[in-house]
Amino acid sequence: MPTVKDVAQRAGVSVATVSRVLNNSEKVSEQTRQKVLKAIEELGFKPNLLARNFRKDKSNLILVILPTIANAYFARVVKGIEDTARKNGYGILLCTTQNSPEIAAEYLKLIEKKQVDGAIIASAKIEINFCKDLDTRRIVQACEFYPFLDSSCVLIDHRKAFYDVVDYLIKKGKKNILCAIGNEDIPSEFERKEGYRKALEENGLQFREENVIRCSYGWTELYEKLKNLCCLKKYDAIACSSDLMAVGAIKAAKALGLKVPDEFSVTGFDNIMMSRLYEPSITTVAQPMYSIGEKAAQILIDTLESPGAFKKQKIILPHELKTRESA
Amino acid sequence: MPTVKDVAQRAGVSVATVSRVLNNSEKVSEQTRQKVLKAIEELGFKPNLLARNFRKDKSNLILVILPTIANAYFARVVKGIEDTARKNGYGILLCTTQNSPEIAAEYLKLIEKKQVDGAIIASAKIEINFCKDLDTRRIVQACEFYPFLDSSCVLIDHRKAFYDVVDYLIKKGKKNILCAIGNEDIPSEFERKEGYRKALEENGLQFREENVIRCSYGWTELYEKLKNLCCLKKYDAIACSSDLMAVGAIKAAKALGLKVPDEFSVTGFDNIMMSRLYEPSITTVAQPMYSIGEKAAQILIDTLESPGAFKKQKIILPHELKTRESA
Repeated sequence: MPTVKDVAQRAGVSVATVSRVLNNSEKVSEQTRQKVLKAIEELGFKPNLLARNFRKDKSNLILVILPTIANAYFARVVKGIEDTARKNGYGILLCTTQNSPEIAAEYLKLIEKKQVDGAIIASAKIEINFCKDLDTRRIVQACEFYPFLDSSCVLIDHRKAFYDVVDYLIKKGKKNILCAIGNEDIPSEFERKEGYRKALEENGLQFREENVIRCSYGWTELYEKLKNLCCLKKYDAIACSSDLMAVGAIKAAKALGLKVPDEFSVTGFDNIMMSRLYEPSITTVAQPMYSIGEKAAQILIDTLESPGAFKKQKIILPHELKTRESA
Repeated sequence: MPTVKDVAQRAGVSVATVSRVLNNSEKVSEQTRQKVLKAIEELGFKPNLLARNFRKDKSNLILVILPTIANAYFARVVKGIEDTARKNGYGILLCTTQNSPEIAAEYLKLIEKKQVDGAIIASAKIEINFCKDLDTRRIVQACEFYPFLDSSCVLIDHRKAFYDVVDYLIKKGKKNILCAIGNEDIPSEFERKEGYRKALEENGLQFREENVIRCSYGWTELYEKLKNLCCLKKYDAIACSSDLMAVGAIKAAKALGLKVPDEFSVTGFDNIMMSRLYEPSITTVAQPMYSIGEKAAQILIDTLESPGAFKKQKIILPHELKTRESA
């Protein structure tokens, strides 16, 4: 079976030049390209299976790194990415990290190995130590932005979004408002807490650290925490950082005999399907999830198609307060 | 930089033998292996990035093909696959097909391209025409079994499961029972319909084709169909093929002023989180989703690790009827 070396010999060029032709590199003159293609044809040279990546230097695959698929929130983001990718001739592969930065780093290696052309990190937790030596042109952050990874990003203004929802509770007459957020080492959670603080302070209410409850995004942990909070009745509302947390809060309020929203108002975040279907339906913040995915994919694909035109972008998309029955 | 050829020369063996050593093939004597490893070390030979796949002939990645991630049902299956894969040193990549057999076929090509070692098809629709020439040892079907793809599979007995839930409705005194299922070209949907038929007939009730409603798995389509069914009141129950369908049915019953479950009982399928959280909570069938994923991954990995020991398996795991408020 003829090798690249045989092709180079016959065409009277170097192996590197043959590679360039196989690579569709623009650094080869048309005349040389024709010589090489002729030699390839005459010899019946077939780049083998593994050389295929090398030849095209493209897999036409985009990796999407998610913390989990258990949260329905991500399905729309993925759909936006997928539709945009498919329109542009790319497939997408998803992976989940359970928010482990080590696992995220492992999967990011697929870029270097050329098994994927680039990656969209959608909310998955990353750490500075695992992000050295990454080609940031091939990565876009979506929903969440870790500033130490100097890539393009597409997300909402989480601080303003949480400000809006707390401000809405205050305008509805609520004064003793709890806040339930995830871990503050996640940038959006830190931002949301700051939004909560700002809304209180601008409305002349005092921010109290002890009114900030940290918990997981599911419903059970907040449910247990609130049910065991002997003094829940001294509060009249809670702003939650996920819709499932809001379900937990509503269940706890009901268990303690509090009427939602009159005695205890609850807001969620993300506008997942359940927030609309739940009874009472849940006041929440809608992120433009599909658009975030779409835009992130478009930025990445534009760069992959024309690496020379790369320009780092930070896109902030508008959020929307969905007022429903729970607040 | 030294090449495989240099290593072969120095060790006094053929290039193929070096490949076999790099491949961890068992066809090399221990003595030869040691010679090659010594040459590799002395020359400082490093298999290059692209040769890595070649060297190990393994990506240590498993592809999971899903119809969508919008249905929370799949999150647990994926978790079972992922935990098992990780324990065995494999990563997993997910892809979604929106139930297009063409897209599933495209992703299955990643096996042939050696970008993944094998695939688990979890409920994604496939078609016989796209499944020729697949290496069925590298594929396991989960949740759903298309018999034309002669691979191992792990799933529940869908016919028996639907039989059980309809039988339960009948034992509760229901006599005019609708059935809502997805498209019957999906084997499990066909099986469920047969379970519905069998339960009716064994209980002396007549099966009527017109009482079978075909619709998508979300809640809206069934909701609209039932709301516009002028004669819904002549029925006293519906057995649905997904929990979201059940939500649609409950909403329609409520909209028409029917009390659930007294006047109209509703059952779902899959036991997604919402079925427990919804009010009324939804009687449903729990598939052992995590175990299905776990078992499918284990069968696949066992084969990948010892291809010689391959034996096609059909594993039927037990389902469980979860009786709640809606029926």
